[in-house]
Amino acid sequence: MNYKNILTEVFEETQEFKHLGESVSYIPELAKVNPNQYGVYLQTIKGESVGLGDYTTPFSIQSISKVFTLAMGFSILGEKLWDRIGVEPSGNRFNSIIQLEIEKGIPRNPLINAGAIVVSDILISHLRNPLKEYLEFVRRLSKCPNIDYNKSIAKSEKDYGYLNAAITNMLKHYGNINNDIDDVLSFYFHQCAIMMNCQQLTQAFLPFANHTEDFSFNTINLTSSQVKRINAIMLTCGFYDESGEFSYRVGLPGKSGVGGGISAICPQEYAVTVWSPRLNKKGNSVLGMKALELLTTKTKLSIF
Amino acid sequence: MNYKNILTEVFEETQEFKHLGESVSYIPELAKVNPNQYGVYLQTIKGESVGLGDYTTPFSIQSISKVFTLAMGFSILGEKLWDRIGVEPSGNRFNSIIQLEIEKGIPRNPLINAGAIVVSDILISHLRNPLKEYLEFVRRLSKCPNIDYNKSIAKSEKDYGYLNAAITNMLKHYGNINNDIDDVLSFYFHQCAIMMNCQQLTQAFLPFANHTEDFSFNTINLTSSQVKRINAIMLTCGFYDESGEFSYRVGLPGKSGVGGGISAICPQEYAVTVWSPRLNKKGNSVLGMKALELLTTKTKLSIF
Amino acid sequence: MNYKNILTEVFEETQEFKHLGESVSYIPELAKVNPNQYGVYLQTIKGESVGLGDYTTPFSIQSISKVFTLAMGFSILGEKLWDRIGVEPSGNRFNSIIQLEIEKGIPRNPLINAGAIVVSDILISHLRNPLKEYLEFVRRLSKCPNIDYNKSIAKSEKDYGYLNAAITNMLKHYGNINNDIDDVLSFYFHQCAIMMNCQQLTQAFLPFANHTEDFSFNTINLTSSQVKRINAIMLTCGFYDESGEFSYRVGLPGKSGVGGGISAICPQEYAVTVWSPRLNKKGNSVLGMKALELLTTKTKLSIF
Amino acid sequence: MNYKNILTEVFEETQEFKHLGESVSYIPELAKVNPNQYGVYLQTIKGESVGLGDYTTPFSIQSISKVFTLAMGFSILGEKLWDRIGVEPSGNRFNSIIQLEIEKGIPRNPLINAGAIVVSDILISHLRNPLKEYLEFVRRLSKCPNIDYNKSIAKSEKDYGYLNAAITNMLKHYGNINNDIDDVLSFYFHQCAIMMNCQQLTQAFLPFANHTEDFSFNTINLTSSQVKRINAIMLTCGFYDESGEFSYRVGLPGKSGVGGGISAICPQEYAVTVWSPRLNKKGNSVLGMKALELLTTKTKLSIF
Repeated sequence: MNYKNILTEVFEETQEFKHLGESVSYIPELAKVNPNQYGVYLQTIKGESVGLGDYTTPFSIQSISKVFTLAMGFSILGEKLWDRIGVEPSGNRFNSIIQLEIEKGIPRNPLINAGAIVVSDILISHLRNPLKEYLEFVRRLSKCPNIDYNKSIAKSEKDYGYLNAAITNMLKHYGNINNDIDDVLSFYFHQCAIMMNCQQLTQAFLPFANHTEDFSFNTINLTSSQVKRINAIMLTCGFYDESGEFSYRVGLPGKSGVGGGISAICPQEYAVTVWSPRLNKKGNSVLGMKALELLTTKTKLSIF
Repeated sequence: MNYKNILTEVFEETQEFKHLGESVSYIPELAKVNPNQYGVYLQTIKGESVGLGDYTTPFSIQSISKVFTLAMGFSILGEKLWDRIGVEPSGNRFNSIIQLEIEKGIPRNPLINAGAIVVSDILISHLRNPLKEYLEFVRRLSKCPNIDYNKSIAKSEKDYGYLNAAITNMLKHYGNINNDIDDVLSFYFHQCAIMMNCQQLTQAFLPFANHTEDFSFNTINLTSSQVKRINAIMLTCGFYDESGEFSYRVGLPGKSGVGGGISAICPQEYAVTVWSPRLNKKGNSVLGMKALELLTTKTKLSIF
Repeated sequence: MNYKNILTEVFEETQEFKHLGESVSYIPELAKVNPNQYGVYLQTIKGESVGLGDYTTPFSIQSISKVFTLAMGFSILGEKLWDRIGVEPSGNRFNSIIQLEIEKGIPRNPLINAGAIVVSDILISHLRNPLKEYLEFVRRLSKCPNIDYNKSIAKSEKDYGYLNAAITNMLKHYGNINNDIDDVLSFYFHQCAIMMNCQQLTQAFLPFANHTEDFSFNTINLTSSQVKRINAIMLTCGFYDESGEFSYRVGLPGKSGVGGGISAICPQEYAVTVWSPRLNKKGNSVLGMKALELLTTKTKLSIF
Repeated sequence: MNYKNILTEVFEETQEFKHLGESVSYIPELAKVNPNQYGVYLQTIKGESVGLGDYTTPFSIQSISKVFTLAMGFSILGEKLWDRIGVEPSGNRFNSIIQLEIEKGIPRNPLINAGAIVVSDILISHLRNPLKEYLEFVRRLSKCPNIDYNKSIAKSEKDYGYLNAAITNMLKHYGNINNDIDDVLSFYFHQCAIMMNCQQLTQAFLPFANHTEDFSFNTINLTSSQVKRINAIMLTCGFYDESGEFSYRVGLPGKSGVGGGISAICPQEYAVTVWSPRLNKKGNSVLGMKALELLTTKTKLSIF
């Protein structure tokens, strides 16, 4: 497979959609980002790599972080994790509080806000220094020791994070948060506020594609079967209420963030990240969705 | 009408139900109250009065306070109040957060938690010292200058008030709270934590029954038409998702609280308060519901 | 009280709103009615009466019929009626099917479609000739032996009544319909398709206002207490999800229909009907709502 | 891979769960089936096959039929199919009517009842003899010309199919059914009432696994990309509100039916069917879920 040629075609053919969509508006620090940026980076498990456009520009990874915290929580609790969170797609917007009330404080899955907040609570309960250990894990995964938090984005999210505060209070009401609400939210906002570029994210997702290799980073260890299960959750739950659409059009496990990034993996083949801040109405990057659809169409490779 | 005889009959005939229901459990300070207490106090606008049982024992008025804050908010904003709150029955449990998400942060009515929290926010915005002015208003209404907050109940509610915190954050998310969330919640919890007995509550509700008289207490003034509109809201919204049942069985405007109190009025005739801490599944006093049903059956007087 | 002068004022002052709203569109036969008609008729229990505008023009009573069938069902089953229907306001649009699924086939109240369909089923089970006996009852109530069904409207409703068919099937699924679905629907559509004018409807509602008099028409008998309970249900449930608004602005028990009619009663005082086909977004007559609000404001008489 | 040994192990190790769950009760004809039957049949695209237990006993395929009708509808309309149906997981029970009201008559996906009913409507609009052509397609797919409808099951479903009738009426109300409701339902019930055994179903699913081969049966033709998209929908939507769980535990596209069958495919590798009538609370075969989880665990082969 000539990924360089294919990705170049994809990058060119998607240029015409560059002005569709709007960047996120409810987090002021994110609203400042130049919306016309567009980068993509693919790396195969055999070591080939292609980068195009703004693939070295760091952006706020936002909800892509939920894959990293899920890996941590799953490594710590194993199947016991599912006593506190489900694995079903939500069929609702990413921050819907309705489901939480109906389902009595058990979030649908770990890749929506409520679920990731419960994972944050778990990490706080089990780690000595969650902020430090989370950052260390991400640095090791991506082989990049200089990745760091963007404090002003973390603060901006906190200042406008009333919905996440509502969710956390609901979870606490139902007994599904053990730690102090402010601590949980602060950790959660920091997770989202890490800055990474396409290359770093692709590197960090490669171990999920390459699950027959050891998944062992710092104290975080997963079996091949566990990595595959995280991939399964990405497939059914990674794109909020557009997960079915992504599965249908692209056919790869992946995760999006409102910063405009999407990382996805083709098992035993490659990891890829696309970044462009303009989002569709479901909160997913317009160009990210289109580029990845074109990629699996041209390569004729998906999980199905 | 011989209210003394009728109320005595009601009091005796309801004794058999004294052990039905459970007192509220989620506010530890309230769970400590002896659940077997039962008091009733009726006063006519002509000046007759009857008190039976534990009618001089103070209890936590809880949501009955929502009528007092509604009167204050309505006096301050008039019809503009309805830009921020509706007047429709909720058809749901008193603290449901689902409706708030569906209706984008506009609470259904001022007598459910979300609505009363918005009223609290309004009072904070318009009053120099809300805690003091609210207490002053209630003292004047009930002609009892020694009514006061129970600080330990207020604290107990705050410590376990995650659902109300969730609601307030949701309201803030939708732009329907202008003040600091902690300030709003603290004021709200204090309103609920006032201690009054049946006699004092009945006195405080008498001006709602007697709406052709001036309603003017401290700086809070309402026209006869406005008082009648508050009565209308009590009728349709005063008993959470049992409002229809209360209207059907009793036929009087009223308001209940999870402390076990129910105050109700018969326009141009009387006000009445029943108190007993055991609640039915909808959060309303078992004996309160039964006693008032019997009262309007025996007097053949209701608003219908 | 000079009702003639007051009603004349009301009629004149509301003329300016005559072009607001739209008549119902989903029942083709109703959509043909001239939307600019406007009539009002009030009659006191002492015998005074005032009629203005198009008060002798017959129109399709639609959901106002639900009060008549409720009276019949309540007369037949008494309190057992509530084993199959609730008495709580719905907080939702008049034909919402969501509530029915959540509440396992028990309609919220008898004045929404689902509730009235269950009442129809009950009448079919208990009456020898439901269509004939219903018509007889309405004729007696309104003292008008020439009231009749409009067959073409009944047919038009059936032809486009998929939502009501969906509701009836849901009710049957939950075991709350005993008769054949087509029979129940046909009877239900005929109830709605009766033609009456303001004067006849006012006459038919007068016994609900005058509940200390015998309520006994053909085989349908209600006690004073039962009539008051029907009034209570009208107050909390008579205007779909605008019941709170009607209670707040008007303060009388009443019932509206999508044909543009509203009938209301002031207990021990009068019954009144306003008719104008243009509806607001909630499905209630714009002029009906305004006229009745003005009426109770000017008379200073409401139930509160 | 030695599928014979592996499947034999799976079959033996799952025997201990044979008495868990209950067979479907709401379709009388299905309730009569002996619940202790258990069969499994796997066939690889290379031609190997293994059958164990009751794999030659025909059973009612029920919702597994939705994959066949989806293939037909997709072949006829292509991407235009999605004007009338979504591709998102429902997050709700298989026959929930709530979603349909919220989403204005557009079913979430073609593998829930509402979606399959819309597909039925489409087939009726486009085929000369839908019942015959559907049967022909299934016979060709499974290479079994003697597969047929079970008329008594079809009738039994119709007699108790009030919920599906409610759904169809709702769809018609929202304009998403073009044909006569009874015709659509009759066709739908017949699709579900086809009798097939594990071997025949496996054969019929093999073309979905083997999507690089021509998918062309009678007049039904799909490209490789289209087959993969159907597989994607099976993965996210094939197990009602347990789709995430199946994806997580098994990791294969598949479809279950309340008759107790589950068919699944491993792309480019095999198709497999397990049948056992006892269902879990989500409506999926207990043994089917367990056997397939064990199969992908032992083979270490899934799509992730």
